Amino acid sequence: MPDARYAFLGPAGTFAHAAAQRLAGGAELVPYGTVTQAVDALRDGAVTGAVVPLENSVEGAVPATLDALITDRPLVIVAETFLPVVFDLMARPGARLADVRSIATHPHAEAQVRRYLLTELPRAAVELVGSTAAGAEAVAAGRYDAAVAPSSSAALYRLTTLAHDIADQPGAVTRFVLLSRPRPAPPATGNDRTSLVILPRANHAGALLQILTEFAARGINLTRIESRPTKGELGQYCFSIDCEGHLADQRVAEALAALHRLCADVRYLGSYPRRDGRQAGLLAGNADADFADARAWLDRLREQGSG
Amino acid sequence: MPDARYAFLGPAGTFAHAAAQRLAGGAELVPYGTVTQAVDALRDGAVTGAVVPLENSVEGAVPATLDALITDRPLVIVAETFLPVVFDLMARPGARLADVRSIATHPHAEAQVRRYLLTELPRAAVELVGSTAAGAEAVAAGRYDAAVAPSSSAALYRLTTLAHDIADQPGAVTRFVLLSRPRPAPPATGNDRTSLVILPRANHAGALLQILTEFAARGINLTRIESRPTKGELGQYCFSIDCEGHLADQRVAEALAALHRLCADVRYLGSYPRRDGRQAGLLAGNADADFADARAWLDRLREQGSG
Amino acid sequence: MPDARYAFLGPAGTFAHAAAQRLAGGAELVPYGTVTQAVDALRDGAVTGAVVPLENSVEGAVPATLDALITDRPLVIVAETFLPVVFDLMARPGARLADVRSIATHPHAEAQVRRYLLTELPRAAVELVGSTAAGAEAVAAGRYDAAVAPSSSAALYRLTTLAHDIADQPGAVTRFVLLSRPRPAPPATGNDRTSLVILPRANHAGALLQILTEFAARGINLTRIESRPTKGELGQYCFSIDCEGHLADQRVAEALAALHRLCADVRYLGSYPRRDGRQAGLLAGNADADFADARAWLDRLREQGSG
Amino acid sequence: MPDARYAFLGPAGTFAHAAAQRLAGGAELVPYGTVTQAVDALRDGAVTGAVVPLENSVEGAVPATLDALITDRPLVIVAETFLPVVFDLMARPGARLADVRSIATHPHAEAQVRRYLLTELPRAAVELVGSTAAGAEAVAAGRYDAAVAPSSSAALYRLTTLAHDIADQPGAVTRFVLLSRPRPAPPATGNDRTSLVILPRANHAGALLQILTEFAARGINLTRIESRPTKGELGQYCFSIDCEGHLADQRVAEALAALHRLCADVRYLGSYPRRDGRQAGLLAGNADADFADARAWLDRLREQGSG
Repeated sequence: MPDARYAFLGPAGTFAHAAAQRLAGGAELVPYGTVTQAVDALRDGAVTGAVVPLENSVEGAVPATLDALITDRPLVIVAETFLPVVFDLMARPGARLADVRSIATHPHAEAQVRRYLLTELPRAAVELVGSTAAGAEAVAAGRYDAAVAPSSSAALYRLTTLAHDIADQPGAVTRFVLLSRPRPAPPATGNDRTSLVILPRANHAGALLQILTEFAARGINLTRIESRPTKGELGQYCFSIDCEGHLADQRVAEALAALHRLCADVRYLGSYPRRDGRQAGLLAGNADADFADARAWLDRLREQGSG
Repeated sequence: MPDARYAFLGPAGTFAHAAAQRLAGGAELVPYGTVTQAVDALRDGAVTGAVVPLENSVEGAVPATLDALITDRPLVIVAETFLPVVFDLMARPGARLADVRSIATHPHAEAQVRRYLLTELPRAAVELVGSTAAGAEAVAAGRYDAAVAPSSSAALYRLTTLAHDIADQPGAVTRFVLLSRPRPAPPATGNDRTSLVILPRANHAGALLQILTEFAARGINLTRIESRPTKGELGQYCFSIDCEGHLADQRVAEALAALHRLCADVRYLGSYPRRDGRQAGLLAGNADADFADARAWLDRLREQGSG
Repeated sequence: MPDARYAFLGPAGTFAHAAAQRLAGGAELVPYGTVTQAVDALRDGAVTGAVVPLENSVEGAVPATLDALITDRPLVIVAETFLPVVFDLMARPGARLADVRSIATHPHAEAQVRRYLLTELPRAAVELVGSTAAGAEAVAAGRYDAAVAPSSSAALYRLTTLAHDIADQPGAVTRFVLLSRPRPAPPATGNDRTSLVILPRANHAGALLQILTEFAARGINLTRIESRPTKGELGQYCFSIDCEGHLADQRVAEALAALHRLCADVRYLGSYPRRDGRQAGLLAGNADADFADARAWLDRLREQGSG
Repeated sequence: MPDARYAFLGPAGTFAHAAAQRLAGGAELVPYGTVTQAVDALRDGAVTGAVVPLENSVEGAVPATLDALITDRPLVIVAETFLPVVFDLMARPGARLADVRSIATHPHAEAQVRRYLLTELPRAAVELVGSTAAGAEAVAAGRYDAAVAPSSSAALYRLTTLAHDIADQPGAVTRFVLLSRPRPAPPATGNDRTSLVILPRANHAGALLQILTEFAARGINLTRIESRPTKGELGQYCFSIDCEGHLADQRVAEALAALHRLCADVRYLGSYPRRDGRQAGLLAGNADADFADARAWLDRLREQGSG
């Protein structure tokens, strides 16, 4: 795509930048300050894609991204990538851990290193800044003693690493997605994910059971579910759901059609290759060939009175 | 249908004859001695239809008919009728109730007048014969004192009625169906019934729950369900089911296709106008228009990435 | 039980007699002419038990027995037995198959040998009589040429066997049950069955789904289900259900209590040892110990705020 | 509670402080810098309660709070309150909107006023700080031109309000909860909420369906559901759930016991009065009296063989 331009959460050196490079496929990358600005640029046509974080294995869903997908003109997810989250504590060359009195970092990073900082640097003041890269930059400029940031920031801002991989929960990953204005989904690969927002007709437990039944009856696993308050009405919920499978899979298509019939609203947010593991094997009767066979049987029943 | 010939359970004068007359629509009626013989005649082409009893509101399903439908070459139900079951006690002219010492009747009739006979004629011997009409005929021939038979038999065999409508359970009805070799179902009327035999892949409670979920999820009411042992294997069951709706209704078609995918076998036994009451109103989202709308939405998602 | 007296379907020599002997355990056996009479004798205190057929693997449920259990004062099943159904064709000594012109048998027996008689004796007249033993007796008395009856009848009535085991469906069994006036169930054995009649609050598919959910959620398999019209109201159904397990099993007790809360009526028809195979292994979490553990956990939550 | 001491997210003047004052009931309030620190203080016995934010109607769940509840030694929620989120833009006296070049606020506040700032102050730099009150304090100290903070901060830090209620989504509320070390729940009020974390035995759609069935079968509505990755294992989920009702309600207790039997783990997080609306009326059969009636019926079945 020679003319592809993707928005990402800048500045350079953040995890978001690394994710955007992975998903770029040759596209030009354009930094934006917030998810909202990146998504606006996509909706307005200033860019052709936007790479944004959707969820973090420690922190959970990223509300700004979910909300950008739920409201306003439709967008679709066309790709995802998972980035290991490795935080280092970095300072200006020559500094020592014992000297650190102030630490700059982004709130999401802070959440993932809290225990470390409470234990190792209990007296240091933690200052929240707009991005981990901005924190590293501010340390280089002498405004704070140390930054919690991805390893790559140390080289970029000529800092030295005081401690490596300090996350309280090792192995954290962040899931980034590439958003596009609506277009047909990339081809099914046999290991895909489909994202949806579903607004039920009523709010009782039976309504959610009805929604899940449409997935379970076709052997479709969910990989994420989250109730979200519907803006402007207390006690009214919609469900943000990721499930296994692709819009091109008959079991997914039929489940979506059923939800469209039975729910107040279903917003389709894209089908795309899944990057964090293999989907479970299909339960008997749920392959495309089974759907085709059932359809042919039905046609025979209608035409001849016998299958 | 000038060449239509329908088998029925003879001889003339039985309930089955009355039912056959209702369903005949001009067809020639041919008496047969048993359900098995009538159904064989249909399969072999000797007749074009067979009128047989399927269930009785007191006695339940008629096993011979169910079994004839479940096994062997497929047949379909194309019409049904409900006949009130009114049994009279009849004897030769001049006889009195107090004189009755022997009573002839068919076992199904006997089952429905047991309490009456135990109470009113506790000392009379009850003799079972092949049909209620055969009983009346035998009384006319002097072989028994009285017969329990439909009112119409009295005139036919010149008997006098000793007691009218003696069924223990007033208001009983028998459901008769017209069977055909496989052919397209009669057009949907908006108040139809569809008959099925479903063999699950496994025998646990979850299997039946899965089957019922396919109906309930589409708002399809069942009007009859019965587990039946699968011939030749102890503890292996199939389900004989009648549900509301017609093969031409999208909700029924999709439920059948799902069952075809998920079950070991589904035998379709016909869709036909229902004659015993109105079906419940459709639940929201289950009309044909809702299915068409969902299909169009799905097509837009696939072609444009947005509904 | 020295004073135990059990009603059974007489006369001697029928399958019902053989079943009663199996279930007698020393009780005196008293023949009655019909299920209704046997059950009446039990309700009235003339006997202490009644052995009646409940279902046949070919013919399905026995309506007279089901109805006797569903209506009137409660009775419970306290034991069951399965009897292989082996029908012989028998005649007076010296007779040959080719000479048989008339055959006497009971309607249920006739239903199970129809194909044989149609094929082997297509011109013989089949006469229905009140029991298979009565048919054999009538043959001995010279009134018919042959009888279809259990093997034991041949010896009893000094007849000779023309053909052995002529059932169209080999391997048929009849399930007989011993009924009692209400009393505590026999102890649980780990392989039991519980019988119920359930009247839902509404008649839609969701109602049956709700009922089955209470069984399936606790891993309780059904071994028989049958919708039966509720007497006197067209289109109103109750469900006659047999399930695995015993009233003393926590999973069964809790399912019954839930059905009692959610349905218009639940009639308990007894828990008793199952005689036709082993129940499936319990699904994880459904053993009595699991229920006791959950109850103890709940008590800790209520008393201490933590499990 | 004379000796009650509650941790809250300081400093004074934040929404968290207002929430803590509502929930204090005379307790001494002690400010802490982060949710983690407040919760640690509670677990360690330094305080007797902790008031923390659980979810925001715009931003969704607060991950730090959820994680503090899911892991480590158990804590329970004993009260909740909902606080309208009203953000003002405030500056030093004399300042004008047109002069604002830098704005300090907390990331969660920033997320809720993004559109306003992009539209009204597109060229102002947004600086993230540790709390909204800290931002207001920094503005008073001359370090930034303006702060986005709750109205109460203006009086506290002698600032003037440039714009009132600037949230992009009017009507936002934050739900704060009072945590305690495990103790019995406050009495049921008829309008309560119960919080749980449920770890299923397997990860397929059927597992979540099974969980929801236990709620729906007893007419228990969920008010929030969120899948959360189980720390340390990719693709392994637990469910954070709030439901209607109280541990003292039979329907809730039985649902919890069932989940305890069927799931790998259930962590009970407390039952407490609900403050954001009335629960739906109970579905027929789910009141405590219905459970008591069913239990009595079961006892009669076991003792007498008849209900």
